[in-house]
Amino acid sequence: MRTVTKDNITDVFMGYVSKDTDPRTREIIGSLVQHLHDFARETKLTHEEWRAGIAFLEGCAAIETEDRHEFVLASDVLGMSSLIDMINSSEDATSSSVLGPFHVSGAPPLAYGGDMKRHYGGPMLLAEGVIKDTAGNPIAGAQIDIWQTAPNGLYASQDQEQDTYSFHGLMTVGEDGKYAFTTVKPVEYTVPSDGPVGDILRACGRHPWRPSHLHYIVTAPGFQPLVTEIFPDDDPYLDQDTVFGVRNDLVMTYVEKPASEFPEGMEVSGKVTENFLQVTFDVTLAPKA
Amino acid sequence: MRTVTKDNITDVFMGYVSKDTDPRTREIIGSLVQHLHDFARETKLTHEEWRAGIAFLEGCAAIETEDRHEFVLASDVLGMSSLIDMINSSEDATSSSVLGPFHVSGAPPLAYGGDMKRHYGGPMLLAEGVIKDTAGNPIAGAQIDIWQTAPNGLYASQDQEQDTYSFHGLMTVGEDGKYAFTTVKPVEYTVPSDGPVGDILRACGRHPWRPSHLHYIVTAPGFQPLVTEIFPDDDPYLDQDTVFGVRNDLVMTYVEKPASEFPEGMEVSGKVTENFLQVTFDVTLAPKA
Repeated sequence: MRTVTKDNITDVFMGYVSKDTDPRTREIIGSLVQHLHDFARETKLTHEEWRAGIAFLEGCAAIETEDRHEFVLASDVLGMSSLIDMINSSEDATSSSVLGPFHVSGAPPLAYGGDMKRHYGGPMLLAEGVIKDTAGNPIAGAQIDIWQTAPNGLYASQDQEQDTYSFHGLMTVGEDGKYAFTTVKPVEYTVPSDGPVGDILRACGRHPWRPSHLHYIVTAPGFQPLVTEIFPDDDPYLDQDTVFGVRNDLVMTYVEKPASEFPEGMEVSGKVTENFLQVTFDVTLAPKA
Repeated sequence: MRTVTKDNITDVFMGYVSKDTDPRTREIIGSLVQHLHDFARETKLTHEEWRAGIAFLEGCAAIETEDRHEFVLASDVLGMSSLIDMINSSEDATSSSVLGPFHVSGAPPLAYGGDMKRHYGGPMLLAEGVIKDTAGNPIAGAQIDIWQTAPNGLYASQDQEQDTYSFHGLMTVGEDGKYAFTTVKPVEYTVPSDGPVGDILRACGRHPWRPSHLHYIVTAPGFQPLVTEIFPDDDPYLDQDTVFGVRNDLVMTYVEKPASEFPEGMEVSGKVTENFLQVTFDVTLAPKA
């Protein structure tokens, strides 16, 4: 169409989309392009500013590796990852929260009561709970893919000092739906801010901190998979998580207990000599639609 | 903020932006995030769909090189490049049109009347005109950075058979503002469709064709730079340019003339034995704001 103008270009674009196009594809591309065009029109975006936007994407591309997912990080700090989580959350289930860019697939099995902290120091945390359905019944055979930072604030994928699956574990629950493991209490940490996403944070006067959290992906046949996190209720960054991941039902009290109250049946039972923290976090999965 | 919801997350995001933030940065990031969030909410975007979006960006990243600018290409086929051009065009000046991903900086000087076609065959095109201001006065010393495809439909940067600056030239006009050069008439061509942008085109049932065009960047001290293109009025893709670049004032008649009418003063004058095409395209630059 010769007479493309800044006011009709969105309609011209949709006119180019074939009538045979999958309706959902048409809906998504149509909404995306309408919003991108409106963004440019409303801000009267200059060439220089748009080039800066392209340069942002190219800058993300330049540092993207198997272990550094800058586009996911951009999605996280812009609130898109959390928004997609909330749009797709089932109201009857535990809230989902951001996957983040540091999950590594293929974590080794972690038995019930297993110890993820190994030789690392720091406050011992006993995390336990039940995986259940919306009626409160345990889900036998549910799997929990667990990961977190080491005490230095780095995930295994960011840290050459750690093994590939350091602070990663895959637990399968039994008939009672119960899980339990020991670890080091995760620390607050900063998302990587040495790349283009860090430039955005700095341009907006934002910090790169996340509150302490443990990541879970919980799956079971017949249920909707849940990507979520647990936060301690005394964390200073709880109200200003840079990736918008905190939900009320994911904030838990980490109870300090004497060594004498450490339960039986854990890998480190009988070897605990100092106070430990305990958090109980039950997870409810929604049935598949 | 703990109580982030899908309805308030955009406000929470803006609450994170520091009060000291540059006002234009705040305006742009605020509009962008509002539109991205609205896009996700309106389409009820699923995790799988958003992951496909991230995978699109990662796929662009994977093939991005110094010679393959997939993000620019995405901007082009989504109409963003043309829209930015139109938003920023001066109404008194020649229309701008897409830069595209194939411009190579540092083109060698091309003297008035110079020949860009060299040993290449195909219909000879004599392109000429005047660079002038909005009052119609010639702009002495204006520069025209010219580039186009070879007859095989490839730009130098895409084609190992061509030199770096094949079909590229930088002409400086004299006191009369006039330019003239000979070349091969550019051919219609397809934008690269072997990458993620090609997948988008196919998903929408769109073709990757652009009508034949010659690219110019025209610059002069005291004037707004102009990135533009010239199209022949008989091109079959004029009404369906896949990058939305055609504007009425950029469509020109390419007049076929006998060899005997070929003018003096050109590099190939006296050596032309067949009919040639002539296009006159005057360029008007707007003063700097």
